[in-house]
Amino acid sequence: MPLSRRSFLQGGAAAYAVGTSTPTLLASVLQAVTSNSGNTQSGPSIVTRLDTGWEFFRGPLDAPWEIAHSQDIAVWQPVTVPHCFNHYDACDPETPAYRGQGCYRKHLRIANPFPQGRTLLHFQGVGQQAAVYLGEALVGKHIGGYDEFVMDITEGAQHTPAGTDLQLAVVCDNSPDTERMPSDLSDFTLYGGLYRAVHLVYVPAISLEALHTTVSYSPGSVAKVAITARLYTPAATQGDLQLNLSVTDPSGRKVFQQTLHPQTWQGEKELAAFELKAPLLWSPDQPHLYHCEASLTCSDGTSAVAHAFGVRHTRFEEHGPFFLNGERLLLRGTQRHEDHAGYAAAMPDDLIRQELQLVKDMGANFIRLAHYQQSSLVLDLCDQLGLLVWEEVPWCRSGVGTKLFQERGRTQLRNMIDQHRNHPSVLMWGLGNEDDWPGEVNGQDKEAIRHFMQELHELSHQLDPTRMTAYRRCDFARDIPDVYSPSIWAGWYSGSYTEYRASLDKARMTVPHFMHIEWGADSHAGRHAEDPDPVLARILTGKGTAEKGLDYKFTGGDTRVSRDGEWSETYACDLFDWYLKTQEEIPWLSGSAQWIFKDFTTPLRVENPVPRVNQKGLITRDMQPKEGYFVFQSYWSKKPMLRIYGHNWPIRWGKAGQERLVRIYSNCSSVELFLNGVSLGTKKRNPQEFPAAGLHWNVAFREGKNELRAVSDGKIAGPSGKPFPLADEVAFTYQTTQWGAPKALALSLKHQALGSATIEAQMLDAAGVRCLDSRAVVRFSLAGNGKLIDNLGTPTGSRIVQLYNGRAEISLSLKDVVETSVDSDGVSTAFLRIPRS
Amino acid sequence: MPLSRRSFLQGGAAAYAVGTSTPTLLASVLQAVTSNSGNTQSGPSIVTRLDTGWEFFRGPLDAPWEIAHSQDIAVWQPVTVPHCFNHYDACDPETPAYRGQGCYRKHLRIANPFPQGRTLLHFQGVGQQAAVYLGEALVGKHIGGYDEFVMDITEGAQHTPAGTDLQLAVVCDNSPDTERMPSDLSDFTLYGGLYRAVHLVYVPAISLEALHTTVSYSPGSVAKVAITARLYTPAATQGDLQLNLSVTDPSGRKVFQQTLHPQTWQGEKELAAFELKAPLLWSPDQPHLYHCEASLTCSDGTSAVAHAFGVRHTRFEEHGPFFLNGERLLLRGTQRHEDHAGYAAAMPDDLIRQELQLVKDMGANFIRLAHYQQSSLVLDLCDQLGLLVWEEVPWCRSGVGTKLFQERGRTQLRNMIDQHRNHPSVLMWGLGNEDDWPGEVNGQDKEAIRHFMQELHELSHQLDPTRMTAYRRCDFARDIPDVYSPSIWAGWYSGSYTEYRASLDKARMTVPHFMHIEWGADSHAGRHAEDPDPVLARILTGKGTAEKGLDYKFTGGDTRVSRDGEWSETYACDLFDWYLKTQEEIPWLSGSAQWIFKDFTTPLRVENPVPRVNQKGLITRDMQPKEGYFVFQSYWSKKPMLRIYGHNWPIRWGKAGQERLVRIYSNCSSVELFLNGVSLGTKKRNPQEFPAAGLHWNVAFREGKNELRAVSDGKIAGPSGKPFPLADEVAFTYQTTQWGAPKALALSLKHQALGSATIEAQMLDAAGVRCLDSRAVVRFSLAGNGKLIDNLGTPTGSRIVQLYNGRAEISLSLKDVVETSVDSDGVSTAFLRIPRS
Repeated sequence: MPLSRRSFLQGGAAAYAVGTSTPTLLASVLQAVTSNSGNTQSGPSIVTRLDTGWEFFRGPLDAPWEIAHSQDIAVWQPVTVPHCFNHYDACDPETPAYRGQGCYRKHLRIANPFPQGRTLLHFQGVGQQAAVYLGEALVGKHIGGYDEFVMDITEGAQHTPAGTDLQLAVVCDNSPDTERMPSDLSDFTLYGGLYRAVHLVYVPAISLEALHTTVSYSPGSVAKVAITARLYTPAATQGDLQLNLSVTDPSGRKVFQQTLHPQTWQGEKELAAFELKAPLLWSPDQPHLYHCEASLTCSDGTSAVAHAFGVRHTRFEEHGPFFLNGERLLLRGTQRHEDHAGYAAAMPDDLIRQELQLVKDMGANFIRLAHYQQSSLVLDLCDQLGLLVWEEVPWCRSGVGTKLFQERGRTQLRNMIDQHRNHPSVLMWGLGNEDDWPGEVNGQDKEAIRHFMQELHELSHQLDPTRMTAYRRCDFARDIPDVYSPSIWAGWYSGSYTEYRASLDKARMTVPHFMHIEWGADSHAGRHAEDPDPVLARILTGKGTAEKGLDYKFTGGDTRVSRDGEWSETYACDLFDWYLKTQEEIPWLSGSAQWIFKDFTTPLRVENPVPRVNQKGLITRDMQPKEGYFVFQSYWSKKPMLRIYGHNWPIRWGKAGQERLVRIYSNCSSVELFLNGVSLGTKKRNPQEFPAAGLHWNVAFREGKNELRAVSDGKIAGPSGKPFPLADEVAFTYQTTQWGAPKALALSLKHQALGSATIEAQMLDAAGVRCLDSRAVVRFSLAGNGKLIDNLGTPTGSRIVQLYNGRAEISLSLKDVVETSVDSDGVSTAFLRIPRS
Repeated sequence: MPLSRRSFLQGGAAAYAVGTSTPTLLASVLQAVTSNSGNTQSGPSIVTRLDTGWEFFRGPLDAPWEIAHSQDIAVWQPVTVPHCFNHYDACDPETPAYRGQGCYRKHLRIANPFPQGRTLLHFQGVGQQAAVYLGEALVGKHIGGYDEFVMDITEGAQHTPAGTDLQLAVVCDNSPDTERMPSDLSDFTLYGGLYRAVHLVYVPAISLEALHTTVSYSPGSVAKVAITARLYTPAATQGDLQLNLSVTDPSGRKVFQQTLHPQTWQGEKELAAFELKAPLLWSPDQPHLYHCEASLTCSDGTSAVAHAFGVRHTRFEEHGPFFLNGERLLLRGTQRHEDHAGYAAAMPDDLIRQELQLVKDMGANFIRLAHYQQSSLVLDLCDQLGLLVWEEVPWCRSGVGTKLFQERGRTQLRNMIDQHRNHPSVLMWGLGNEDDWPGEVNGQDKEAIRHFMQELHELSHQLDPTRMTAYRRCDFARDIPDVYSPSIWAGWYSGSYTEYRASLDKARMTVPHFMHIEWGADSHAGRHAEDPDPVLARILTGKGTAEKGLDYKFTGGDTRVSRDGEWSETYACDLFDWYLKTQEEIPWLSGSAQWIFKDFTTPLRVENPVPRVNQKGLITRDMQPKEGYFVFQSYWSKKPMLRIYGHNWPIRWGKAGQERLVRIYSNCSSVELFLNGVSLGTKKRNPQEFPAAGLHWNVAFREGKNELRAVSDGKIAGPSGKPFPLADEVAFTYQTTQWGAPKALALSLKHQALGSATIEAQMLDAAGVRCLDSRAVVRFSLAGNGKLIDNLGTPTGSRIVQLYNGRAEISLSLKDVVETSVDSDGVSTAFLRIPRS
């Protein structure tokens, strides 16, 4: 019998293994401690990650009949899961990303080793809703794209003769739905697909649905740990149980152990409580993790779950700073979407690991997971790396919608807290974002919005009394959450970045616990400025620094950098620099989170330099650091670093002999700069000297090739292990020839390998001089047996893109000679023949 | 208040003006005779065709909220209606046609001149279902893509202040649905959109919903005419009515007139009956039409409807021929889908007129409207041109589905008969097609299929006792319909065309009324053969001539021309020729209908020479006659015609001095042929001498340019009106150089105009000799600021296409110089630069 939809939507039953670690760890833990009549070795896997053998069709089918009988209706593609069905089209410059159904199917062989066992499918997240079928029977539906859920297929599987395959199908749907969070007006793509892992899990008749640790600790006292759990007994089984609990400290030493013989119970029940006398504390610098493991034996067999937890104490002072374990900690943060070039929301685990490591290496100690619950791997990495987390429900730009919308929202919050509250990294539960946005259902009903926020706030405290709630931008409800951030975008959506300090000072007293969430600037990677952005002369100050109304658009409103500026990396670096120096000097500031760590797609911004990509990232959508990354690192990182601004700036320009600014970002105390081998002197770092903390030089370059080399007093380990001075260098061309109006595009071959090539477009004037300030929109195209490698959402992977300093590049794959082209309105088209390689 | 869905789906209420003529005629008739308090001149239009001012978005939206609040979610395109949202993608070679929602919206200003009047939206057909909204309120839904329906928006409109606009929205949906006819397995595209006209109609409180004429006539007797009608009185209004009925004969003379003063009534009621003493009969040669008009006056005002009807007598002799008005008439037929290059199902009225005129000019007297109810314009044209019609419900390849499926099917039949039964052209009501197809829901349940067919058969007789039912291919139920055709595809899906006569003889006695529906051959326009198709040597005969199982595919089954042949126009002409000569000599044959008049798209045939196009048409999808058209004309047309085979065959080939076959299709009695100005003698036409009825010559061409000229004894009017001998000529090159294996493609510019160009690809061997038999699949592409004019579903308008005699062409639009390319597996790619024109 298929389970009703209700059973999985309305409660926390989805979380059969809440708080478990990575899927791999989950599997290994379960396998290690699970026995079936003593036969642990030769039995089938207890947990199987279902990543291969899937077939996919993007489009509607009349499920379930046509999923199984569709050889003439649908072309099924083999795929591996995780899989996002917007992996290619999310930032197509010409066609909006697909929204609708995506159908996955797979043959499944069930071999549950437990005589009365349950067979479960565990989904780590499906965009944006899922209907699960076994054969032609609906097992259940799940609404919401970001929380984990479980479908119990025990009864469905029993209808299939032993030794034959089940046909499993999952119909995902990311069609617009005003009754589902987040809003369709959200400034990010509501991706579709089985974009997180799916597991097949066997458990005995009675198993643990959830295992939680709750830690209470104040600096200087003992830590009190309570272990609670829920049973999963869908068949209403009763019986004698044996429960083994054990806790190990960060070194692996067992610090608690207990064996219980309970009867079955209902709901969440405390199983044990104990003290840790001198706990090893969790902090960003030393993220010590304890481990809790529980194995449950019933007459049917044994199952187990495990998770990490930590001991730490957090406190926000009223109108003042944040304290971790009794000491002030400035929350130095960024934010992330789950999005990556070529994968969209289905990021492979190793890329998620690389990305979080980059966040850590930048020196951040805080991250907001925007705007939705993220995968358990992300939380595990935050635990392990030492990143404090603001995780939030996807109540984003939605108004309050209908009763059903609100009920679904409460379910999202319940699931997020139930599934992630063991993670010591989680600092706050975010209740939402920008629900004062114009345009959604009931979007103007301030009282209703306040009422719903109050409900979520109270529900969060009820479910997890140990954590504060947080909210960003909804000023008429700012008194409701524990921690609040208004909109401050000085120097981007309004005003100048020099107004940042005043904006913070003003915001400080508006709420008890102010923290600045979302600030930054878009930058088109590869675009640099020799001179200050011309828009700066026209920016009005003293009129506030918030993003108001539809300021994000390129039309309407006051003069602002976001609409009228150049979107250079240079400007973004100066803005970051100014903000960071400001933050570091404010003793009362709790912290901030820059928006956003990595460029990501959004349906709203088709006119951006990379169409449909929000370019406020410190790294590109394919994870290449922009210059801004190093500005942050120079303020936050404790490991010595040094970066001459402009590694991807091949041609600088100016008059002969004209002095040009060289910025060096470093956390070392002094840096010496050499131009073409000649020292230009040593400067001391002074955090309050803008820009680049005083590490800037005015330099006159020679026409043609130049080399800059910087050497710091910082030391890194050299090849022999001997300390080695930290240095950096860049080479570039200096152009003194002035250019006229753009006249023609040129194309050149930048790189060629077997079956691929990279071409570069350059804008020229009538005399063939490079137009180094051209920001023209160009379009690459190709004829012949090859393909542009496009829709990556990067400046080097979009077939329609704005030039950066008069140039742009793209790669292509080819099977034979091809002809490439680049064109732009009002100038001559360029062509380039690429031979077979 | 929105009307419930039920009110429009379950009854015939949709047909408020059933049997009216073209929309234009409808409007003029209504306007001419409708008065509102005597003010006929200055009032608003009573019927307005809603063709402009629409906006369209293809994709799902959460209706109705997001239709009105979607500036950030959806990009709305201005469109005119009729509009099919598969107009471009139906035959995209790489991506299946879109299936899903398409949303249309439009501002509507209501000004109903009748004080208690009703405001109606009349839809002539929406694919494949529609939900109609006024503002945020659902007015109603309609399921089914081909019947007319009406939505009454009177109450909805009243909620809008006078002088302000209503927001009208129609959400169309062509997603797969196993409970909606036709089957998703159908061999034609289930198009989506507002693809037929939409009208805004004002009627008084009481108006005529339907007006029908029923004619009974036997040769030699008087014709008895009964006029029946239904009222539309949704507000349950009662009152005194005045009803003026009038009938005019084909010359416009009034032959019947009556004024009635009835009370309101329920259901269909007979209003008048009268006799026509010596009626002018309707026939294909002389399609005489009578006209019936009724105007109804209630206290609220006057409305009127009108339609044409005809007097004719039809009879199928058991196992014998068909008789019209007492004389044998061989039904010479073809079939049509509503489909056209660039428009798909939204064919403009003038193209529909051209197409039906082409059918008539070919000499056909019969047409099957496959596989669904077509627009009233099509039926009007059949009435006016003299084409007998088999019109059918879309029960196609569906099995019997669910109860709901069957109920919807019965509704389709009810609506078709109610809406089209006045048309004298309609000969038979088709109950369906190929419902023995493997693979659909309950597709194997023969008893259930029989039961449902019996239900439809009886329902049809009940609704229209004057017409027979018909069905094609479902042998286990062949005893149910009045007229039946099995599958006979001798020479295409199995066997040889020489087996055709035997297949007919065998089929004749299997049912009382046999007619041969669906026969023909695919042909790739522009592909010709010098020699017989090599597959002919391998075709097995004596094993039946039906299409069995999945014979339409390119895999599995026995050797057959459809799978293994060349798909040349030459073979198709020979097959047509053989069939037509055979049909003409069988005295007992009722008739046949070749499949199909025009190439059309299908999701099932992506491997065809033009991908996703069924190429069995006598004309291409952009209405260019193939050579086969003239074969039919030579047998059927009474107007003198003459056609040398191969007008689009630029290069013929063979050895020097080798004799080559010249075919001439003509209905003249003798033809003289000239080669390069020298007579090759005169031949007499003999219908039973194959091929080309004896008008064939074996001719030795000279190397290089040749000219053929044929002159017949047929006469046409010359420029001065003086009779002039009918002649035809072709010029071509004769190539004697043998070619080797294909080695390289070449591209040449065939034509250039302002902003456009046509290029031609040619396959060459290593020595540069044209490979005139190459059928390679080639792919055109383009780099630069231009665009291929593709997805037309024609051999000259598809970017991926099989070569025809080693060549293929495509057109393009360009704004600047572009580079074009053509490539194919295993040969060198060709490029061609096209300068700006």
